[in-house]
Amino acid sequence: MATKDVKIPARPGAQLKTPKGTRDWTSSDLILRDHVFQTASDVLKRHGGISLDTPVFELKAILVEKYGEDARLMYDLVDQGGEMCSLRFDLTVPFARWLAMNNVSQIKRYQIAKVYRRDQPAIARGRLREFYQCDFDIVGLYDPMIADAEILRVIVEVFEALQLEITIKVNHRQILDGLFAVAGVPDEKIRSISSAKEMVGEKGISVEVADQIGEYVTRSGDICEMLRFLKSDPRLCANENVKAGIDDMSLLISYLEAFDAVNKVSFDLSLARGLDYYTGLIFEVIIKPPRSNGAVVPGKSDSQSIQVGSIAAGGRYDSLVGMYAKNPIPCVGISFGVDRIFTILNARPKEKITHKVDIYIMAFGGKDSDGLLLERMSVARQLWNAGISAEFAAEVKPRYDKQVIAAKGSRLTVILGQNEVAAGQVRLKTLRESDDETASKDRGQLVSRGDLVEEVKKLLI
Amino acid sequence: MATKDVKIPARPGAQLKTPKGTRDWTSSDLILRDHVFQTASDVLKRHGGISLDTPVFELKAILVEKYGEDARLMYDLVDQGGEMCSLRFDLTVPFARWLAMNNVSQIKRYQIAKVYRRDQPAIARGRLREFYQCDFDIVGLYDPMIADAEILRVIVEVFEALQLEITIKVNHRQILDGLFAVAGVPDEKIRSISSAKEMVGEKGISVEVADQIGEYVTRSGDICEMLRFLKSDPRLCANENVKAGIDDMSLLISYLEAFDAVNKVSFDLSLARGLDYYTGLIFEVIIKPPRSNGAVVPGKSDSQSIQVGSIAAGGRYDSLVGMYAKNPIPCVGISFGVDRIFTILNARPKEKITHKVDIYIMAFGGKDSDGLLLERMSVARQLWNAGISAEFAAEVKPRYDKQVIAAKGSRLTVILGQNEVAAGQVRLKTLRESDDETASKDRGQLVSRGDLVEEVKKLLI
Repeated sequence: MATKDVKIPARPGAQLKTPKGTRDWTSSDLILRDHVFQTASDVLKRHGGISLDTPVFELKAILVEKYGEDARLMYDLVDQGGEMCSLRFDLTVPFARWLAMNNVSQIKRYQIAKVYRRDQPAIARGRLREFYQCDFDIVGLYDPMIADAEILRVIVEVFEALQLEITIKVNHRQILDGLFAVAGVPDEKIRSISSAKEMVGEKGISVEVADQIGEYVTRSGDICEMLRFLKSDPRLCANENVKAGIDDMSLLISYLEAFDAVNKVSFDLSLARGLDYYTGLIFEVIIKPPRSNGAVVPGKSDSQSIQVGSIAAGGRYDSLVGMYAKNPIPCVGISFGVDRIFTILNARPKEKITHKVDIYIMAFGGKDSDGLLLERMSVARQLWNAGISAEFAAEVKPRYDKQVIAAKGSRLTVILGQNEVAAGQVRLKTLRESDDETASKDRGQLVSRGDLVEEVKKLLI
Repeated sequence: MATKDVKIPARPGAQLKTPKGTRDWTSSDLILRDHVFQTASDVLKRHGGISLDTPVFELKAILVEKYGEDARLMYDLVDQGGEMCSLRFDLTVPFARWLAMNNVSQIKRYQIAKVYRRDQPAIARGRLREFYQCDFDIVGLYDPMIADAEILRVIVEVFEALQLEITIKVNHRQILDGLFAVAGVPDEKIRSISSAKEMVGEKGISVEVADQIGEYVTRSGDICEMLRFLKSDPRLCANENVKAGIDDMSLLISYLEAFDAVNKVSFDLSLARGLDYYTGLIFEVIIKPPRSNGAVVPGKSDSQSIQVGSIAAGGRYDSLVGMYAKNPIPCVGISFGVDRIFTILNARPKEKITHKVDIYIMAFGGKDSDGLLLERMSVARQLWNAGISAEFAAEVKPRYDKQVIAAKGSRLTVILGQNEVAAGQVRLKTLRESDDETASKDRGQLVSRGDLVEEVKKLLI
């Protein structure tokens, strides 16, 4: 229960602000943000997704095991004689902990919740430290690529529902491993390569090998074309990892066709996020229409385009959950970058999002008028009982012009006058933005109290 | 963006658990809990309520100013070279901070969010330390009692929608102040009285005065009867505070009648929560049917009944927000005890809440059968496109009996067979709990792919 039993001391010395990297959300921002969440979760539920809500903080030992050097970016709670806890850094570790605690081996789980990162301000000026993540993961041992294809299908559905044109870039960890080996990268260095730039300088890989890799990873195109390219190279075909990846991607094409999602997907060999983590398919979503043809284009690849960056990303990670559970559990998942998605949608010209009630209930003014408060309350009750949103001025005798101003943004007004009330009637009027209310001759339609709800519902359709 | 770019170290040493006083929420618990939130917020929005979302932690200085001795129950974040922050203790202080920061003088705001209290385990064994609160406050200077009446109306609507029979106990701070003064309590002790038990022992009030108070505060009944009682006592009527309270309560009756909420309300003089905080109307909601008659009953009052305790509480608090803002802002608000409400609803016999998808798509089994994976995927796509929830076994050739088990809980099955698929048809079957699927002779109705969505929608109504 909330306690309002608190003392009221003197004025605070603290400046009134939210902590650095955090913000309040309300009004149209909050409505838009919650629309994004609702849209995503509708899709996820349609696919059998089950929601999981975990505590905002976890035992520090559980988090630290996972994060290694990122641990310095965690918010710790003070040791107040109990357990050492920290605010969750992502939704993956809480999920892994829950899976292990509950001995779950198969589930489609989603979580839309805030996470906390104390990013260094010098590096990340203006970055949020408290922000939402929206994760969907399919956990379990199934036949290959089916769950992976469903994740891609979910991505297509979510962005269609949000009316955002996207491309899903995909790649495959094993194909990259094979590419690197064929190009001449020593085995022990393969997992540590996450970008071409790093390769020569930091990883001690020769320029020749880096060039060979460069010829491969700058290629992208639709999956069929890329598979033809890979299969046309005898050295690549001979590599076990490449073959395994080709098999996976071949299955993927047939599943994406059944899911009608092929034309949103681009196979991009330069996609290299999280290479020391993902074990199979990797994917990243960008705001971009797909290529008009399916040709393999050597040279400038998608990842070097000047887009806003990815708005969702994920992949298959079969080794993660095993750190907490008895046996490793295969997972494939997607994380939607809800902050970026919000920013993009918020920047678009859009219908004004309003939180105004549908009906404003008012009384005619005038010096000797009654104000008709009890009658306005009674009408409000009648509308609320019918599930219709409504409000009225909380004054005994409100001024007419102030009520007109307060009505702006609502769709209809119900106007009470002394005579109409005596006759059991009200006036019902549709508000148009261009109305100059005080000059308007339109006094609305006369409606009996008994017919009011029905008439209102007709007009609100 | 979520980072999955993390290392995977050895098995953790930490025991796998949530921190003390916290829990995970999923499945039917989460569905029920979110149903309570959705129900409440639908009502609040209908009344013009605007949602506010604030950060989970605030500047410690802002929180500490407010909480006084409760500050030791706050979760502090470690000082990591930045601002000193703590997890929010309630939703009232963040709201007051937001009002002052944004210079807001009128608003109907609600917030449904988690708060954090490090209750002493010895006192509060098993109590949650992370729990939801649902607050609704009407802020602003209006004519008296209108907003207060609307809060009571909101309470009635929320619990009607949750199908819980309740009584709202009300009292009035000024009437209590007047009562105490008339009974002989010295002025300086009036505000510190919050229970009769305290009075004699701790507050140094004489037994005679305590007895007199006892005769008053054990009375309760409907508002009309109680006002008659108060007005019948000449000493009470002569007291300015009592008179002001009686005026307020008389207005309240007429507003509650307009709102059709009178019969849910009981005026209970023993209601004394938060007396050093509330400045006018006080209210508390209990699970209990209202009294059958309106008589004033001296002696055993409602508050001594052995009910489960209150499930919502609030009142008018006109001095609070002023601590942060230039001028005090009048507020009246309600806080719903969502944990208790959840516990009560969860204990009721109820329809099994399921998160299962509506449609399970399966293929006939058999050694030489195809498994029809691509066809099952295609049907899934068709249903998802139509906004219908569906799933299928993520296996190339799933066993028939395993699919039957997996289908349990869904409402319909779509069954694919080799011949039907060739003819562009599927079988559509309604699942009944008592079905023994493997023995059932009902093979469902034959439906063309083109008609599938329409037929499914008919059956799902």
